[in-house]
Amino acid sequence: MRGVYDVELEDIRRLLVAMAEAVRTAMRDGTTSLLTTDAELAQQVIAADALVNEDHRRVEENTYALLARQSPVASDLRLIFTALHIAADVERMGDLAKHVAKVGLRRHPSPAVPASLTSVISGMAEVADRIAAKISTVLANPDALDAATLGLDDDEMDRLNEVLFTIVLGEGWRDGVECAVDGAMLARFYERYADHAVNAGRRMYFLVTGRTLTEVDFDEE
Amino acid sequence: MRGVYDVELEDIRRLLVAMAEAVRTAMRDGTTSLLTTDAELAQQVIAADALVNEDHRRVEENTYALLARQSPVASDLRLIFTALHIAADVERMGDLAKHVAKVGLRRHPSPAVPASLTSVISGMAEVADRIAAKISTVLANPDALDAATLGLDDDEMDRLNEVLFTIVLGEGWRDGVECAVDGAMLARFYERYADHAVNAGRRMYFLVTGRTLTEVDFDEE
Repeated sequence: MRGVYDVELEDIRRLLVAMAEAVRTAMRDGTTSLLTTDAELAQQVIAADALVNEDHRRVEENTYALLARQSPVASDLRLIFTALHIAADVERMGDLAKHVAKVGLRRHPSPAVPASLTSVISGMAEVADRIAAKISTVLANPDALDAATLGLDDDEMDRLNEVLFTIVLGEGWRDGVECAVDGAMLARFYERYADHAVNAGRRMYFLVTGRTLTEVDFDEE
Repeated sequence: MRGVYDVELEDIRRLLVAMAEAVRTAMRDGTTSLLTTDAELAQQVIAADALVNEDHRRVEENTYALLARQSPVASDLRLIFTALHIAADVERMGDLAKHVAKVGLRRHPSPAVPASLTSVISGMAEVADRIAAKISTVLANPDALDAATLGLDDDEMDRLNEVLFTIVLGEGWRDGVECAVDGAMLARFYERYADHAVNAGRRMYFLVTGRTLTEVDFDEE
């Protein structure tokens, strides 16, 4: 038994998982709307982000309430702060999914992603989705998550970023400056989304098990 | 008198101001290193970011210690959480200054910013600096800060962003895809830096005065 907060912490964990699932869906749909130039789906992604922000506020309010009610012991405090960090990471993942949807919308009905970048963007979206999935599944099965697989996902995202820049800055690039800039921005959004997802996954592991994953160092913006 | 935490909160506030001053210097130096292709200065900016991260950790540790020692009343809790938010915002401002320095370094000794973008990049750096200055001065003179001036700074940053994209995506662009991509990335770094600075400034105002600034809505990533 961890302390007197188990029930309240469980509520907060459930909110975090709901947020994680929402931002996973948001990035999937954001990518689909981008690659299929589906403006209606893009608008849905943008609108749905308000719900994630609302859940973020609820996590913060539940945390205040929890702390105000009685004095927590140090180990409970660490868990509570971990929950706040996760909520902040996941909330930003939602913003990044919204940014992806907006890139598609800005050029509608022209496609924002030229054929030369479809494959690498799809690849980045897949890696982002794989890491995002880990945040919610770690609650059900914490031991399925380890630092090594998170590190591998992160390496793959870095590799795809390099691929994208090699294409865009290469001699053979024929899709113009605007598509190059959009491609670079999209690469950054997927990369940042994955960074936050990796952080949230590691912290979720700690929240559920009380154990820390072997440190993997990620650059945060 | 606000509560039993005044002394500890004062220590935290002082740490926050030190962080704010460090990241203001970092962005100034980052911009200088970028525009003058000064690799040594860029390396200093990158190295100095570790100190900001260290201060961020100290704010978090002081906060844990404060909370663990005794049960805070709700109003104290809100201030403590505000301090954590400020520390997170300012820490990310440091990361963004580091990103600016890295763009310059990646192309060294070639200049990363072509003559066609020098003026707009300088303008963005000036706005970023102006907002960053407000975070530390609000401690000495909270009433010098108001939502209207923060809103104006933010509008100016948005306008400069549009100017940059108009140049880069215009018919007259002759500086190639790589400079266009770097320019777009830099614009984003300055804009994000300013967004975090505006948030930190508003929160610092609350931390010092206990009053909330009229809400200004900013998009967070």
